[in-house]
Amino acid sequence: MSEIIRSLQRDLNDFGDDLHLIGSERLGNRHPGEHRGNFGAGAAAEPATPEAAAAVVRWCLEHRVPIVPQGGRTGLVGGGISRPGELILSTARLNRIEAIDPLARTVTVGAGVTLQALQEATAEVGLVPGIDLAARGSATIGGMIATNAGGILAFRNGVMRHQVLGIEAVMPDGTLFSDLTRVLKVSAGPDIKQLLIGSEGAYGFVTRAVLKLESFNPMRATALVGVRDATSALALIAHFRAQPALQLEGAELMWQRYLRDSAADKGFDVDWLEGDAPAILLMEVSAGSEAEARDALEEGLAALWEEQGLSSGIVAASLEQARRFWALREDSDFMYRHFPAAPSFDISVPPGALDGYVADLRSRLKTVDASFDAYVYGHIADGNLHISVIGDGVAGAAFKEPIEDAVYSGVADLGGSFSAEHGVGTEKRRAYLAYGNPARRAVSQAIKAALDPNNLFNPGKVPYGAD
Amino acid sequence: MSEIIRSLQRDLNDFGDDLHLIGSERLGNRHPGEHRGNFGAGAAAEPATPEAAAAVVRWCLEHRVPIVPQGGRTGLVGGGISRPGELILSTARLNRIEAIDPLARTVTVGAGVTLQALQEATAEVGLVPGIDLAARGSATIGGMIATNAGGILAFRNGVMRHQVLGIEAVMPDGTLFSDLTRVLKVSAGPDIKQLLIGSEGAYGFVTRAVLKLESFNPMRATALVGVRDATSALALIAHFRAQPALQLEGAELMWQRYLRDSAADKGFDVDWLEGDAPAILLMEVSAGSEAEARDALEEGLAALWEEQGLSSGIVAASLEQARRFWALREDSDFMYRHFPAAPSFDISVPPGALDGYVADLRSRLKTVDASFDAYVYGHIADGNLHISVIGDGVAGAAFKEPIEDAVYSGVADLGGSFSAEHGVGTEKRRAYLAYGNPARRAVSQAIKAALDPNNLFNPGKVPYGAD
Repeated sequence: MSEIIRSLQRDLNDFGDDLHLIGSERLGNRHPGEHRGNFGAGAAAEPATPEAAAAVVRWCLEHRVPIVPQGGRTGLVGGGISRPGELILSTARLNRIEAIDPLARTVTVGAGVTLQALQEATAEVGLVPGIDLAARGSATIGGMIATNAGGILAFRNGVMRHQVLGIEAVMPDGTLFSDLTRVLKVSAGPDIKQLLIGSEGAYGFVTRAVLKLESFNPMRATALVGVRDATSALALIAHFRAQPALQLEGAELMWQRYLRDSAADKGFDVDWLEGDAPAILLMEVSAGSEAEARDALEEGLAALWEEQGLSSGIVAASLEQARRFWALREDSDFMYRHFPAAPSFDISVPPGALDGYVADLRSRLKTVDASFDAYVYGHIADGNLHISVIGDGVAGAAFKEPIEDAVYSGVADLGGSFSAEHGVGTEKRRAYLAYGNPARRAVSQAIKAALDPNNLFNPGKVPYGAD
Repeated sequence: MSEIIRSLQRDLNDFGDDLHLIGSERLGNRHPGEHRGNFGAGAAAEPATPEAAAAVVRWCLEHRVPIVPQGGRTGLVGGGISRPGELILSTARLNRIEAIDPLARTVTVGAGVTLQALQEATAEVGLVPGIDLAARGSATIGGMIATNAGGILAFRNGVMRHQVLGIEAVMPDGTLFSDLTRVLKVSAGPDIKQLLIGSEGAYGFVTRAVLKLESFNPMRATALVGVRDATSALALIAHFRAQPALQLEGAELMWQRYLRDSAADKGFDVDWLEGDAPAILLMEVSAGSEAEARDALEEGLAALWEEQGLSSGIVAASLEQARRFWALREDSDFMYRHFPAAPSFDISVPPGALDGYVADLRSRLKTVDASFDAYVYGHIADGNLHISVIGDGVAGAAFKEPIEDAVYSGVADLGGSFSAEHGVGTEKRRAYLAYGNPARRAVSQAIKAALDPNNLFNPGKVPYGAD
């Protein structure tokens, strides 16, 4: 057992069951999550109350022990990686759904609650969190706040920042910051909690939050449609978004190679996919009834069929079939079985720039190596693409920077971002420094120095420069 | 002409027409806006480019001249008040609508553009800003960012913070902060531009912004309905929000005294208002056609009539009549003709707490003085109330603090805010210190010290403490 754990046990034993302290032996029996380095510290604290969390932070301040906040450990950019001598501070036991207010459409929730647990709890009053993403079973509210998560509903409801009304957090000076407002409208001076959203633990450790909730309509229809490009997919999306009696519930585009390989992996029949559709749009709409949703979907597709060069389409005949459509998009692990360690990216550009960007990307990758190609898919309505670069020796060290440059070139000039919803962590450090916004970086560091002068909160990650 | 203007003219004459410098004589010919003290500095700079604005800030840094940012000067809390020796920095000439992207549903806009000008420009492509408020003709985008404006659509689209994708601003060190992303999803390190939203000029001077746009559906119906309380109004709202083929476009509640005095002021016939309805709900919905919207509105009211104790209702028979309904709510100047200098407030509480809060408020006011009452009205769906306290000698100095305490007591404990959408400015200074969030205040001051160590940006306003 590490010296840190022994000392913590000795110094903070007043907290009893409100504070679990876990050494490397017990950590070794757990799954480290998406990154093997997550448990590198070999020491973790699991407070069950904000006060216990604050006490741990104050202890770490006193002993100059760096703190690595962890939620569901499903982050894809190494934001939770920890090293010997550091202490993991976990939200795992801050996992109570405290209060749901159906009239105000808000929920007060511990940072360690998973998105799926929250979805199940709010469904009982006919509401849903305004955000949804494929990692719902493991991603926690605290982690989603730390990364300003996006997902499949962002085009309509905004990103995580837009769902958050209130936050409680332990600040780097060990004080408990409590701003658990339960109202949408607050114009009462600088909104400090915004700094805690999307800063990946650099400015504090989120313990609780108040989130907005949205209406949920189960009367839906789901389709897969072969389109000629992102522009034609966007024309379909605009058509359905302009119809007042419908709600667009999802719009995900998969370029052909992703769709075909994902379908093959799942034994999904693609005989209906005629011709050579360059991309396939997964679209879901809701309406007054399932029949209305289905009719509107079919009529809309028929109306735009020729104009938008649609080549084929299939509307789900059952909820089970709709689930299989979604699995094509969401179960993407097959990529890593085909191409282990394929470099993966998560960028956003304004939707109108998608086709140009994807064409340029492919040609830039060919310039790096003629065998290179990319799986491309993502949240088309908000211009967020996931990209996995594949090809011979694609994971080789010599290709790392050329591939990154191929992916990131021009993204900022288009008004986009090198990281859309996954964050920066350790994996995107070079991109942050080379392709991130210099004005944001400079002010981020000034604020880091003001709030965390000893650089104890998640060191080695954003905003960098402090270490 | 002030020494400041003379010196600026001498030192910054390279900017030519890109920088107008205005002394007290010319300011004297202009309307100072909502507060007579706005032009107190007697010196204003009107840059036409961000670079000219940055040069003015650097000059002010060098000469230790405090800067007061001003937009439309229609703020209600004295956030733009200036004093001799300070320089007004105006967005008036940063007034270009630069680019509308209908596919991405974004607009790039100068900070000095009024909301109404933006609404008119985006209407040409069938879109609207996601925010609307009564002061649309004068309020500017920069001022709305500085105050995190709310308005009548916030319950659905969120507040100004949720509309902003990108910001360009001059920071207190004179650098130009440019983060004009045009995408919704950015998880690329701390989001510094959030500090510029809602901080009333304390951390910088916004010059340009990128905003989201939303669909607009003109197929509408509008009603006035007598309800027994806020709870019954919220039940109506929940009913209409749960209908997938409808969109709720507005829900404003006016307690009886406000409605009756507003109607009398405008010669609006209230014979249809039977009985003694304690409050009147103004509600607007949109649907596939005007007939559908109207039918849905009438059917919904009929369905809930008895259950919710509705006493009377009227559905607008024409667009002109709907406009007159809205004027009852939005043209509130009559209050100040009846009760000059009536203390006015802008609070938010979770919607379920509205009835209890309003009852407690009235009884607390009676305790202060038996003649006291309040006009109460506001954005019911998000719990945002506007309150003007009326009665004998209500504006007297001795009543100032007791009235504030009557209004603000318990608001924070309910999870609400002493300022919902108007900001803090100079008028809410005591409330900020007595009823604001202490954790927010403390961190706000630390960041102010880091970013603006000389306290030159809008001194004497939030976050206070620096002066």
